[in-house]
Formats: sequence, C-alpha cells, structure tokens
Amino acid sequence: MHIYARNMQLRVGIIGASGYAGMEATHLLARHPHATLAFLGSDRWAGRCARDVLGIDGEAGALVYAPPAAWEEAELDAVLLATPEDVSLQFAPRILEKGVRVIDLSPAFRKGGPAVYGLSERYRHRLADARFVANPGCYPTAILLALVPLLEARLLRPDEIVVHAVSGATGAGRRASEDWSFCELSDDVRAYGIFGHRHLPELRRILGEAAGEEVDLVFTPTLLPIRRGILATSVGRLVPGADADAVLQAYRSAYADAPFVSLAAAPGEVGIAQVVGTNLCRIGFAVQGNRFLACSAIDNLVKGAAGQAVQNLNLACGWDEGAGLRDLRRFRP
Amino acid sequence: MHIYARNMQLRVGIIGASGYAGMEATHLLARHPHATLAFLGSDRWAGRCARDVLGIDGEAGALVYAPPAAWEEAELDAVLLATPEDVSLQFAPRILEKGVRVIDLSPAFRKGGPAVYGLSERYRHRLADARFVANPGCYPTAILLALVPLLEARLLRPDEIVVHAVSGATGAGRRASEDWSFCELSDDVRAYGIFGHRHLPELRRILGEAAGEEVDLVFTPTLLPIRRGILATSVGRLVPGADADAVLQAYRSAYADAPFVSLAAAPGEVGIAQVVGTNLCRIGFAVQGNRFLACSAIDNLVKGAAGQAVQNLNLACGWDEGAGLRDLRRFRP
Amino acid sequence: MHIYARNMQLRVGIIGASGYAGMEATHLLARHPHATLAFLGSDRWAGRCARDVLGIDGEAGALVYAPPAAWEEAELDAVLLATPEDVSLQFAPRILEKGVRVIDLSPAFRKGGPAVYGLSERYRHRLADARFVANPGCYPTAILLALVPLLEARLLRPDEIVVHAVSGATGAGRRASEDWSFCELSDDVRAYGIFGHRHLPELRRILGEAAGEEVDLVFTPTLLPIRRGILATSVGRLVPGADADAVLQAYRSAYADAPFVSLAAAPGEVGIAQVVGTNLCRIGFAVQGNRFLACSAIDNLVKGAAGQAVQNLNLACGWDEGAGLRDLRRFRP
Amino acid sequence: MHIYARNMQLRVGIIGASGYAGMEATHLLARHPHATLAFLGSDRWAGRCARDVLGIDGEAGALVYAPPAAWEEAELDAVLLATPEDVSLQFAPRILEKGVRVIDLSPAFRKGGPAVYGLSERYRHRLADARFVANPGCYPTAILLALVPLLEARLLRPDEIVVHAVSGATGAGRRASEDWSFCELSDDVRAYGIFGHRHLPELRRILGEAAGEEVDLVFTPTLLPIRRGILATSVGRLVPGADADAVLQAYRSAYADAPFVSLAAAPGEVGIAQVVGTNLCRIGFAVQGNRFLACSAIDNLVKGAAGQAVQNLNLACGWDEGAGLRDLRRFRP
Repeated sequence: MHIYARNMQLRVGIIGASGYAGMEATHLLARHPHATLAFLGSDRWAGRCARDVLGIDGEAGALVYAPPAAWEEAELDAVLLATPEDVSLQFAPRILEKGVRVIDLSPAFRKGGPAVYGLSERYRHRLADARFVANPGCYPTAILLALVPLLEARLLRPDEIVVHAVSGATGAGRRASEDWSFCELSDDVRAYGIFGHRHLPELRRILGEAAGEEVDLVFTPTLLPIRRGILATSVGRLVPGADADAVLQAYRSAYADAPFVSLAAAPGEVGIAQVVGTNLCRIGFAVQGNRFLACSAIDNLVKGAAGQAVQNLNLACGWDEGAGLRDLRRFRP
Repeated sequence: MHIYARNMQLRVGIIGASGYAGMEATHLLARHPHATLAFLGSDRWAGRCARDVLGIDGEAGALVYAPPAAWEEAELDAVLLATPEDVSLQFAPRILEKGVRVIDLSPAFRKGGPAVYGLSERYRHRLADARFVANPGCYPTAILLALVPLLEARLLRPDEIVVHAVSGATGAGRRASEDWSFCELSDDVRAYGIFGHRHLPELRRILGEAAGEEVDLVFTPTLLPIRRGILATSVGRLVPGADADAVLQAYRSAYADAPFVSLAAAPGEVGIAQVVGTNLCRIGFAVQGNRFLACSAIDNLVKGAAGQAVQNLNLACGWDEGAGLRDLRRFRP
Repeated sequence: MHIYARNMQLRVGIIGASGYAGMEATHLLARHPHATLAFLGSDRWAGRCARDVLGIDGEAGALVYAPPAAWEEAELDAVLLATPEDVSLQFAPRILEKGVRVIDLSPAFRKGGPAVYGLSERYRHRLADARFVANPGCYPTAILLALVPLLEARLLRPDEIVVHAVSGATGAGRRASEDWSFCELSDDVRAYGIFGHRHLPELRRILGEAAGEEVDLVFTPTLLPIRRGILATSVGRLVPGADADAVLQAYRSAYADAPFVSLAAAPGEVGIAQVVGTNLCRIGFAVQGNRFLACSAIDNLVKGAAGQAVQNLNLACGWDEGAGLRDLRRFRP
Repeated sequence: MHIYARNMQLRVGIIGASGYAGMEATHLLARHPHATLAFLGSDRWAGRCARDVLGIDGEAGALVYAPPAAWEEAELDAVLLATPEDVSLQFAPRILEKGVRVIDLSPAFRKGGPAVYGLSERYRHRLADARFVANPGCYPTAILLALVPLLEARLLRPDEIVVHAVSGATGAGRRASEDWSFCELSDDVRAYGIFGHRHLPELRRILGEAAGEEVDLVFTPTLLPIRRGILATSVGRLVPGADADAVLQAYRSAYADAPFVSLAAAPGEVGIAQVVGTNLCRIGFAVQGNRFLACSAIDNLVKGAAGQAVQNLNLACGWDEGAGLRDLRRFRP
C-alpha cells in the first residue's frame, strides 16, 4: 500500500476509455494538475493514441490505448472504471486487491457495501482518503443535490415527491442500434423506465438516508433529442412551518463550501446550456403555499459522470476538490 | 342568421393567417371537403397569395391575403381567429354580431362565458351547432384528455396531481426576439411559468368541472429545442378501490367514438413523433399501487390549435368530425 | 397481361415497406385516388397492420404487412420496390414476368437497359404506359432538374460543372450502426463519397444524354444532422452568348407543364423547409458574367424517392401526373 | 509606448464582450497564462460580472462589465475589438493612438492598409510584434488555410476555384429578428450571399497575394441549423505536372510548425465535430486526375474568431503561439 504526500503527481488510468464517460474523463485527466494520465484501457481503440482519437494535446496525447487487462503493468495509483456494470464487477475487486484506488462509474457498487457513494457534496468527509468510490448515476446527481439538503433539514415531506427529468442522449452511452439512430431519435421525445428506472434504488437509498425514513418517490426520465445535459424538476410539499427562507437557508448551509453547486434566483433561470461542458450543478427553487418545486441541471457526462469522478478522485487524494475542474469552459458562448 | 344543410359547402375565413396556427389552419382548410377557404386576413402578407407564401395548391392557393378588417366583405359563414388575445377580444363580438360563427384560438374566451370550450372529445354535444367556440390551449388539450375521464369517473384524487409537460418552440408563436433566436434556444432546456402559467386557469376550471370539486394541480411546462409537439406526463394517486382496469375502462368509454384519441399500451410507447403532423392525441398510462402516471402527446399546432379548431368547426357545422383531418400524414416516415 | 381503362382503380403493392422510402410510399398510396394499396411486404413488420405501425387511417390502415414473397397472391397491377439493390435485382424480373408493372427505387436498373429512367419531368413521354421504371436517386433528382434543361439548350458548358449537395440523414435509410447514432451524427457535418458517390454514374449518363456529349462533373455530397431534405448547389459556366434570360427561358420551357417544379426568384430563396413534405423541386439561379449558379431543393423521401415513384406510377397508368401528390402539406407552417 | 519582457503578464481588454465572439474571447482570456483579463466592455451587461453572466471562475469571474468607452481607464496593453465594423472604425484609431495594441475581429481593416491581416499560420512573421491586427473572417480562415499553400506553390490553377461552405448560425452573431428565430431556422438550409458575400474581398486579396495573380473564385456560403462550425469544400484543378504528393508536400511544408492545423487522411475524415470547441483547422484533400478537392473545418467562434485573435495576440506579444489555446477540450466526447 502506498502513502501519498499531498500534491504528489499520481498515476491514474481509465478502463472503458472509449465510451462517452471514458472519453470525457480522458479530456479531464489529460489536463489535471496532480494526476498523470498513465493508462487508457479500450479494446476498440487499442493501438491508437489519444491525440489521434480525441485530439488531445501534449504528453497525454501520445498515450496509446491498450486492452483493459494491461492496467496491471501501468503502475497505477488510481483507476476510473468507465465500464458497464458486469465489467466493473470483475475489475474492481482485482484492482482494489493490488492496493490501487478505484472510482467506479457503473451502477455495480451503488447499492451500499464497501464503496463510498460518491455524491461529492454530500459525502465529502467519507470520500477523504476513500480507496473505493461508487460514482453516482447522472439522474441521481441532479436530483439528490436538489432534495437531500431539504430532507436532511426536515423541510420536505418524504411521501410526496414527484420528479421529472429530461436528458440528452449521451446519457445512454454509445449505441449501435436502430432505435438510437439519428433518424429515429431526432424530433421525438419519450418517457421511459416508468416506475422502475435503474437509478431508483440509489435515489431511494440516499434520499431515505437523508430523511431518516423511507421516501415515496415517482421518478420519470424522458429522453430528448439533444446530446448533453439533464434538467430535473422536483415537486413536493413542505412540512408545516417550513417556508422559502428555510429552504434557501438549507441550501446555503449545505453548499457553503461547494465549488460546483450554483444557486439560481428561480427555477426558470436554470438552463441546461448554463452547465453543459462544466462540472456545475445549478439549482433554482420556488415555493407556493406548501408546494415546493426545484429545477436542477447538470452535464450528464461531467458532473453526472466523469467530472464528479475526478472531483471524487481529488477528495480521495486530498487534493483541492476543484483541481482540473474549475476552468472548464461551458459549451455555449 | 343562416340555416345550413349538412354537407353544404361553407365559406370560412382565417384572421391571423400568418401566425403558425393560422398557417396550419390554412393548410387544413385548403383541403377540407366541406369548407371553402374564402378569406385570409394578415397585414404581414397582404397582397401575396397562399400559393406563393405556403406552397398551397389548387384554388385555395390563388387566395390573396388581405388586411384583417376586410373579412366583412368576404361573405363568410365562419371565421377562425388565430390572433393574439387582445385582437380576438376586439374581433369576436363584431363577427358574431353579423351572424358569423367564430372559433377563437386565443385564450380570450376560455374562462367560461358565452363561448363553448372546444375540447372536442369532452364537449362534443355542446359543440354541435355552437356559434362561438373558445379553442383550448395546447398544453390543456394534452393534459385534459389524459385526466378528465378519470376525474369524471372518480378514479383519481383531485388533490395530488403533478403535471410536467415539454413543448416544441412553435407553441410560443412567431418571435422576433433574441431570446427566441436559434443560437439561444438550441441545445438549451428550461422550465417556465412555474406555478403560474397562463394555461392554469383553464386547466383548473375544466378539471374541476370533471371532478365536481376543486383540483390541486402543479403544472410545469418546459421549452424544448424542437419545433413541434407536446408530451405531458401527469402523475397522481388513484382513489381507494380504483385500479388499472378501471382506468382503462374509463378511457375506453370516454373515447369509444373519438377518432383522434389513440390509446397506447404503456406511457413509454407515447412519442411526439407519432403525432406530429396529425390531429391525434396519444395516451398511455401505468399504475403502481395507488400511483397513476399517464403520458399524452399531441402536435401543438394541430390537435393543440388549428386541427382541433377544424374539428370544432366540423362539429359545429354538423359535418363528419374528422372531415379534412383523417388522412393527415405524420411528419415522420 | 391486363389492359386498363384510365382511372380504373388499380391494385398496387410495396415491397420493402418498412424502410423510410417504403413508409413514405405507404402514406402516399393510402390516400391515392386511383390506386388501392393492396400489399405491404416487410419481414420486419409481418403480421402488424399499417394503422398500428404508421397511424394510417381508413381501409389502408387495416392492411397487414406480409413477407415480401407473398406479393404473388395479392393480384397486383403494380409494385413499388423500395428495396436494396440486390433485392430489387431478384424481384423485378419475376414481377415483370407476371405482367405486373414495376417501379424500382433502388439503383439496380438506373444504368440504362430495359427500365425507363424515371425523372418524371424529363422523360414524361417515355414513362407513359411504361411497364418498368427505374426511379432516380435523390441527389440526381435535385441536380438533374437544375442542369438538364440548360445542357439540352446548350447554354451551359459541360466541362466545368461543380455540384455540392447537402442531405438529411434519412437519405441513407434505416441504419443500426453506431456511426449513424444520434450522438455521433448530431452537431457534425461531413462530406463523403468524394469523387466516387454511387449516384455519379446516373448523373453522368443523364447529363451526357442532355448535353449530347460527355459531362465533366465534380459532385460532393455532405451529410447534415437534419432528418429530411436535399439542397444542391450547382456551379458552372455559360457558353458564350448565353445569359440569364436564356436560362430563365430554358427553365420555363422545360417546366411549363410541370406541376412539381417551382422556380424561385434567386438561389437564396430556395430553402429545404419549403419543400420538405411535398413532391416539389424548387429551383433558383443566378448569373454573373459567364458564371452560373443554381440551388435546387427537394424532400429526399418524396420527390427524391416515394413521391416521384407515385408520379411515375401516375404517368405510367395514364392518370393525372399529380394524383395523390398535389395537396401534400409541407412540414413547416 | 511600452516595451515588454516576454512572459510578463499583460493587461488585455475586450470591447464588444457580450457578442458571441466576445464571450468566447472572455472564456479564453480568463484562463490565459500571460494575459490578465482587465476590461470587459459591453453596454448590455454593464454592471454585471463575468461569473454571473458566463459562469467564469476565479479572478476573471469577478470582473465587472463596463461601458465600452471606459476602456481608457483600464490601463490596458492590448484590446480585442469584437465589435461591428462601424464601431471598430471608431475605436481602433483612438486605442492605437494611446499606444495600445489592437486586434480587430470586424471586417473594418481587412482590406489591407495599416493592419496586419491576422491569418496566423500565413503571416506569422508579420504578426510578430504587430501593433494592429485585422483578424480574418471565419469563412476565409477555413478556406485560405486550405488553398494558400497550393497557390503559393503554384500547384493549383487560380482560375477554376469553386468553394462551398456551410456554417453554424453563431457565425452571424446575436440576432433579434424573426428570420433568425429557432422556429424559422431549424430544419431549414439555404445558401446566401450568392456571388457577393462580404468575405469575398479578403478571400480574393489573400488568395491573389499567394498566387501572384488574380484569382477567379466562386464562393457560396450556406446556413445550417446547427450552432457552431464551418466546413468548407474547395474544388479546383491542379496545374500540369502537379499531383497528390506535391500537394501533401506543400501542406506539410506550410504547416510544419503550425500547432493548430491538422491534416486528415482524406476529405471525408474532416468533420465539424472534431474541431468545435478548439482552435484547430483540420484539412483533408483528394486528387483525381487534375481535379483537386479539399475539405477544411474550423470552429467559427474559435479559430474563426476569438481563438485566432488570441493566437495573434500571442504572436504579437512574443508569447508561445498556443498559449491559452492548447488544451481546449472539443465539445464532443
């Protein structure tokens, strides 16, 4: 096992580097001040280099993709698993066994257990020096950041929450099927995973942990014909006595030191375009009587995947939480 | 006052013919079997003809746009007002006074009063021979068709309804502002009208009429970077004893003779692309415990505006309800 | 072999009915005044009906898709082959052998030979009573309609033609590959088929026939992240003595009786949105010195495929050339 | 007049900071290693800060927008004018007079005269220590980088060049008109500026300078319903004796030390998505007989505007040409 001095340069690898989250992680780690990108695992791109495939500049651009199993020879200090659930289930234990830190982006270890659930702002203390992190799903990241502080502060009733979220198509990863073709997806909009989306278990678990009791949640995701971004609209009821001021106070207190949560003046001022390309989660809320509504937006591939993974790596390694994530330019001028 | 034999050819005019709903109405009436398009009122296009502006074929294509006030000389039997609220407030009484039928697409007369609320499937009997119709808003059309039969049948609790709806940008009409420019809207998604959208009053009124009591509704519209289509996701709770079978029965009974409502096997099988270009409303629902969820989709410019106006014209004139609307090709192959 | 009285109702089938061109043809023939849609061949959709799959109303909606080979039992008068080249090569001879008219939408028979090349406006006389038609490709339709009249009239030099054309993604048909996924195509633009697109042979053949000599052509197609529509920009040089008036005269003369060619005042007034959904080809040109430039636009699935196939069916059967095609509503209000 | 030591931190301002190019320049300069963003001139945003408006992090985020005329109090070493032509004509002389370096992004000074034409790769030597730079237009940047080396090397005939270029809508800047609304632009494609686009003069001037004689050019720009990116397809004829090898050699020699030009193996491997977000120009070519074709792609707001302006600032200040531009993440994972 290694002991690191803070700010020492560490060697980090990505397995599943040719998926959308893996590509995004490659871009982020290629310019990280404390991490050296030292391994890119992908059968698809094995033998090609990051400069040719992703246009990455400098030293990281010269890194050549290798079969995933080759990670062992790369003398890594940490690995990001941007792999499907079954692949993560195989790789994570072996990597951990060698004393190498793992941040897994799949749903494999989000059910609780040995991995720390990597909702950075909520579990910052658990994440400090964590050896094994289960990075949250993209929808849960947007939804939990809007709801956890209010359930924790007992401002929101846990039995009346209805969440509707829209997402760009990169959230589903690379797809080689006709259903995901441009001609089929464009100009169409559909809900899916009604009453049973695969992110529901982690949503219920983390919301329940915050509320101190079980949470009754309807969550409806909807696929949009855009590339990136999630907008979640969460509707609920405040408990008696709670009001907009208390809600604002709860958010401010929860996110006082959070570099990547930004509060908007109103739900209508939260737009996907403000966050796409960045690691930000932007939240705006409104209260009418005891009705509460919040909109929260993230980039599904950054704060919803690779960006939060890097944020968790930063926390786990004792680096500045925002290292390599602060000056990400959003994609809209 | 005129008395019409069924299937006699009537002269119909459109005021506000250069707005998106007016243009759509022009296309529909140009090919209507019983209506003769006899007046196109638009200052913007005054002096040009429908063939040049909209590519309309045949006789209707030769019709020349005229200033709106010229409607009086056109010897019309009916007028579609595809005008802003304030213009409708001026024109409707004058036109009615002359014994000419009015179908108003603006919100001006949706609050109740002299006009029949033109949700065709719900108020078919009131619409028969109606002289004055207030055509519903686009969001209300999609939402009411999904909820009214269940409230009417006392299957759904009226105090727990949360509706989220996404809409294409044509729903807002022609806009000459920077906020509605391609560069600002594309790739962005935002909610708006939080707790106070202008369609709320008509939603509350018609839902309350169906439920026999006041309805507590949260309605959140969201603007999408697509041109056409609305998908409404309505979440509620069934009353004790109600179940999926009862819901299905209520829909089947309400829409037994409705040519433009189509039931899908599940909410996830309701897509905007299935209805854009047509006068259809497609509805799919699911039940889990006492939780109810329905997705309903329409084309905001057809069933949500010009198509339903023509459907109402058909009902008011005693024609086949689907005249001129049956064989509309959807825009997706 | 059958002998038809004009305007007798004929039985028409589509093989390859679940492809994009086949779906479009289904919509068109379902509402055709003289053709009865009598067979829909598709393995993919075998057993389902056109109402469920495409939302088609009326009798045609009840038609059930069948395996392609079942065409023989359907007592057809004509078949549209909306099939890949190799399938057309198999089916066409067998169908013709039975005395059934064939309109083939694939490139299989466009090289000359037994089939009449179905550029309707150019070969109207050959198409009258034709038993076998090779429907043109989508790019050639847009380009040939802009260039043939000028080469025929010896106004344009045949050795200096450079054509650039952009197309929506439906032009490539249904695709189940990652390269054609929404996430890969959206926001990207690329040229392809440089110096060797599969439509080049038919372009050279028909242009050469018009010019009376070989034509030197550079043709560069470019794929756009939109669903439908082709815009072709053709640049060339006029022969000495030719001018804008002569060009206009040539177009007017060539398209005097053409219901589906529309001349615009300038190339910049030719937009894809004006034609998508319709069978129109819109052409605008400009001349500067001896430089000539034309923009021409079509809907790749209508005038570029299924619409022109129906137009050719009309011509072959002696019906009105525009039967079933005149009142197609364009997709943009 | 100042004398700078290399790598000394300089104070740079942007006038026109709320336009698309100005916003992009703000993002770039906010993270530049040698420039301190010291002034943001915009009447529209006066009083707000860059963090609130653009989400910019760190010190630059605290910078408050001021009326353009306030530049004089900001003690600037250099100014980027991201202003309309007429505003640049007013501001540039006054700023230069004070000994402050000016990089003008408008067409005002591209006709030759006191300003160096800022096509970085071509005029790197003239740009060293330049006090006044006329930044090229977006289309010319993409086209000139593809053609200048070949004309310079006398490989391409100057009398047979046909260029077709497609551009995203941000190229036209912020627009508050209906014609530029989402509903009008989306799903449409049109050419414009036929035979007379405002970029033609600078194209002719720079191409002529490279060729040593006048160049006969047809240039047709086309507006696409996407936000960013230009793809230019240039077609011409090689001079006798020239071939693909000679072309490749000319490009390699011209761009041997160019960090932002990237050669692709073929024109079909040049896609807008590869460059959007970066300062790259990607070029691919093909030769068939004496026919030459090249595709070149840039991000119209980066290499086509703000990025090249920063590149020119780097060259003028004697900094590393790629400072602040090397690790720009492209917008597509």
